[in-house]
Amino acid sequence: MVNRIRQTMSRTYRVFATDDLPLEEGMFHLQGEESRHLSRVLRVRVGNAVEVLDGRGTIFRTEVVGVNGRVVVLKNLESVQVAKPRVAFDLGVSLPKGGGMDDIVRQLTELGVSFISPLFSEHGDVANVEHRAEAKMGKWSRISSEACKQSGNPWAPVIREPRSFDRWLRELPAGGVRLIGCLGANAVSVSSVSKSFATDIAFAIGPEGGFSEVEKAIAEDAGFVPVCLGPHTMKVGTAAICALAVACEKFGV
Amino acid sequence: MVNRIRQTMSRTYRVFATDDLPLEEGMFHLQGEESRHLSRVLRVRVGNAVEVLDGRGTIFRTEVVGVNGRVVVLKNLESVQVAKPRVAFDLGVSLPKGGGMDDIVRQLTELGVSFISPLFSEHGDVANVEHRAEAKMGKWSRISSEACKQSGNPWAPVIREPRSFDRWLRELPAGGVRLIGCLGANAVSVSSVSKSFATDIAFAIGPEGGFSEVEKAIAEDAGFVPVCLGPHTMKVGTAAICALAVACEKFGV
Repeated sequence: MVNRIRQTMSRTYRVFATDDLPLEEGMFHLQGEESRHLSRVLRVRVGNAVEVLDGRGTIFRTEVVGVNGRVVVLKNLESVQVAKPRVAFDLGVSLPKGGGMDDIVRQLTELGVSFISPLFSEHGDVANVEHRAEAKMGKWSRISSEACKQSGNPWAPVIREPRSFDRWLRELPAGGVRLIGCLGANAVSVSSVSKSFATDIAFAIGPEGGFSEVEKAIAEDAGFVPVCLGPHTMKVGTAAICALAVACEKFGV
Repeated sequence: MVNRIRQTMSRTYRVFATDDLPLEEGMFHLQGEESRHLSRVLRVRVGNAVEVLDGRGTIFRTEVVGVNGRVVVLKNLESVQVAKPRVAFDLGVSLPKGGGMDDIVRQLTELGVSFISPLFSEHGDVANVEHRAEAKMGKWSRISSEACKQSGNPWAPVIREPRSFDRWLRELPAGGVRLIGCLGANAVSVSSVSKSFATDIAFAIGPEGGFSEVEKAIAEDAGFVPVCLGPHTMKVGTAAICALAVACEKFGV
């Protein structure tokens, strides 16, 4: 069933159901932005197929039964519950300058990350983020929902509030694989890390200036393995997406 | 030597030498934008270390010996020739809408790609690119030089003119590994592709709507193996960077 849905993705419209979009007598009544986008921009018509994602694994396959001004009415045909990914990836990403985190949230969501943990780090540049954390969190949540819709990812990631490296560490489950991106001589390739059946993989990505010596020592004490993502100094966003891609290929397949 | 240079990257200023920046009697005389950026934005002073990259593998380790208005004078201390990467990766990337290719060029350069081949594809959206190809090429070249400076990649990629899928195929060297990103049921993981000692790896990334049936048939005839980069429909840029990251880990290490 999931396969059939995925096969038809490129022709399927998708919307993201927030908690205030109830399924009432087998119908969704879309209003506001989602409705406007479907009717005015995508110009859906009665009979078009629309998938409704709830971000918690459920895909409602629906059909448009009414487009009335500002309301689009969808009839639910069937619900599919997609299992949670077997492996949960938690990306601890040093906050880049300005809006740099936005694209990172989008790309990590497209790949199917489970947790995004924006980190304050000593060599990072996070002036003025702390007091704007709430606005940022709202924006990241919207970007992540959009990315779920675009990519068909039925499991929206948990986006944690920005936090320090050591606070992040304290919340990681015990027994998982822990990797930290490094350019140092002691870093190994991800391929050469022992294959593990752990279901929790944490991957720390530092700022362009690298993690500080104190942060590296904390990571080492917490069992993080230094891994190399290539010979060059990547931007935080490039490093984060590469880290997740390579880790998925190694541990998630 | 290269290792030592890489260790100090985060504190090293870099400039990109174009063909009209000659090394005269052991000195570079920087003018224009590179000079203005170094002196006004980065505020280099006499004695600061600056690396000059030529994009063809040479790193000149220099020292600032003069900052005079619009000219910065660098004294060459030593030149290091970094070997060309053993494996050449050629990413055939379906042109995304608008300026979407800009970030792709930047991220692929940070990772060390050898060839970037923007592709016109049947399901792609390339209105108005063909007649603006020259302007686009100039912009991509500048973005790639910036990414070399930022990341310390001494080998700038060759960026091909946008072309059709079948024209790209005709220019690929024989005997290399050829992969094409797919969501179909016949796609395998990159990990499961046979390890190869080939030194040319081509990776085709289609538009969000996927390659057309005709393009897929051409690719199959040309020996492309369909590989899966995850269960979701990634945007072109996310797919391209993931493809290169995973291929580098598999074939480049």
